[in-house]
Amino acid sequence: MEEYLARIGPADEAAMAVATQRQQLLTKPAGSLGVLEDLSIRVAGMTGAVVPSPAVVTVFAADHGVHAQGVSPWPQEVTAAMLANFAGGGAAVNAFATNNRVDVRVVDVGVASDVDELDIVHAKVRPGTRDLSVGPALTADEVHAAITVGFELADKLVLDGYRCLLTGDMGIANTTASAALIATFTGATADQVTGRGTGIDDATLAHKTSVVEAALVLHEVPATDPLKALAAYGGLEHAALTGYILGAAANRIPVILDGVIAGAAALVAQALHPSSIDYCVAGHRSAEPGHAVALKALGLQPLVDLDLRLGEGTGAVLAYPILTCAVRALAEMATFESAGITAA
Amino acid sequence: MEEYLARIGPADEAAMAVATQRQQLLTKPAGSLGVLEDLSIRVAGMTGAVVPSPAVVTVFAADHGVHAQGVSPWPQEVTAAMLANFAGGGAAVNAFATNNRVDVRVVDVGVASDVDELDIVHAKVRPGTRDLSVGPALTADEVHAAITVGFELADKLVLDGYRCLLTGDMGIANTTASAALIATFTGATADQVTGRGTGIDDATLAHKTSVVEAALVLHEVPATDPLKALAAYGGLEHAALTGYILGAAANRIPVILDGVIAGAAALVAQALHPSSIDYCVAGHRSAEPGHAVALKALGLQPLVDLDLRLGEGTGAVLAYPILTCAVRALAEMATFESAGITAA
Repeated sequence: MEEYLARIGPADEAAMAVATQRQQLLTKPAGSLGVLEDLSIRVAGMTGAVVPSPAVVTVFAADHGVHAQGVSPWPQEVTAAMLANFAGGGAAVNAFATNNRVDVRVVDVGVASDVDELDIVHAKVRPGTRDLSVGPALTADEVHAAITVGFELADKLVLDGYRCLLTGDMGIANTTASAALIATFTGATADQVTGRGTGIDDATLAHKTSVVEAALVLHEVPATDPLKALAAYGGLEHAALTGYILGAAANRIPVILDGVIAGAAALVAQALHPSSIDYCVAGHRSAEPGHAVALKALGLQPLVDLDLRLGEGTGAVLAYPILTCAVRALAEMATFESAGITAA
Repeated sequence: MEEYLARIGPADEAAMAVATQRQQLLTKPAGSLGVLEDLSIRVAGMTGAVVPSPAVVTVFAADHGVHAQGVSPWPQEVTAAMLANFAGGGAAVNAFATNNRVDVRVVDVGVASDVDELDIVHAKVRPGTRDLSVGPALTADEVHAAITVGFELADKLVLDGYRCLLTGDMGIANTTASAALIATFTGATADQVTGRGTGIDDATLAHKTSVVEAALVLHEVPATDPLKALAAYGGLEHAALTGYILGAAANRIPVILDGVIAGAAALVAQALHPSSIDYCVAGHRSAEPGHAVALKALGLQPLVDLDLRLGEGTGAVLAYPILTCAVRALAEMATFESAGITAA
């Protein structure tokens, strides 16, 4: 862990100053590209004014012991079934990724059932977490192993040539663990961060909220102990995503966060090394209430806000062309001087 | 004109019903793609569940006599200079279009100066409008000629194989004409729809607002006379965009609207034939206050909301991959049945 964190440094302020200066010279009224100007300056601080391409979305999949508490209407087997769907190209993230020229990787970091026959990355730490409502979801060793999966995959993807990493996730009941993590790091209450996930009724939402509330009392993890928080609540995909975000930061590569699961993992990464958030771009704001709470604590502004609540990385993939447009404008636009135009 | 309007019919409700049904069968929780599900259903009503590709953004450029009233800090010559910049590939819309695989067409429909040497579409109706603050900006014949430019270009682009049309515009002072048009069709006051355009100070904004207010009193055009409104206020690019939107609708092709200029033109199109708006997608919401007023009257929800206020078609091009992602998900995703997954 120390070795990973030692590789992370802050964004390059000199490069950001150069980019800020260049934005003033381009053939457009100053500020008229709005949020995209700030975004291009942030990316310059990560990697310079180079379009972050090619890109890959990694869908980390795992199951959750707390599913036994009836927090989701979907059977746990859906996690594995959706992995087969990803592998077959039939899911929403596949359609979006094809459309936006993003490659897709799928990683089993802790699916409960056997998915050995699928053509995906096999890195199962254990078959699902333990039930967070009765005890720690993971051991410290399991947390470390899952973080390592994410970090080392990020390293490998950058070696393979990728210059932008996107987060994806799949795991029935994973909004429950996300809610507990977000409450831990932001101080929000269970009812502020617990949502309907894939779509649950009022009674199930009330029950899910009480499960999160009781778990926060049971584990009593301080915001200063991020590894203990991952052990208490899981999930394995959250831990792997934490490693993946840290890995992107270590490689000075932008990482586009998807929804509430990635937001929870980014809060863990922030607690481990605040500079890691310099490399995070919020792809979208999901309809899940905890996500807005997480984004506020991370200080990130979402690029897309279209009521998506699917996960899989769909929001991150949807935002990817906005990121590349922002950087491409900074890199490729003419200046007033080069175009021979007198500015106002 | 009648001939154009006769070719426009409403969206295909049967195709929309089929798309609505199919959205329920796809491998995702119902509704979890949020706004993108509605968008895919709307496009199905235009063209069926076919990804609207290839796409082209057409930048209609023209000048404005009201520029003489000091409503913009930019010299009128910037319109022609930016046309050269578009032709040379150095503008923001070029960078975005390259990034998102959208072709760019540039049309001189009324630039004040001579741009004959540029490799663009030459369809100048007249060199800029007359000053709307002292009399009608255009004659009825000029309005008709500019609408024809837009409509016939839409026809030609569809013949050339394009399946999605995007609006772009360039014209120093064109937010002034837009404000007058939006006030005419929505009943909003001048101060509700007049904004800072490319970026003006408080004093210039107050002056610009008073110019719009006085023009509304001078011309007194009722919302029921859209052609008279175009004659009163211009601009030539607004009239051409009106024709382009009507042409997209006549060809049952989606047209992605950029910002406040396109919003004003779409209000004219709506007044001429309400069904034309069935084919309009709001690319983004610009920072210009009149744009939100126009979108509300059009009943359109913007896909991107990132404080852009540049024009050129940048907001439409930015939104294009969101549109294609939405349609591709509907067209290509597996159903629960085909993927062998039991729904919740």
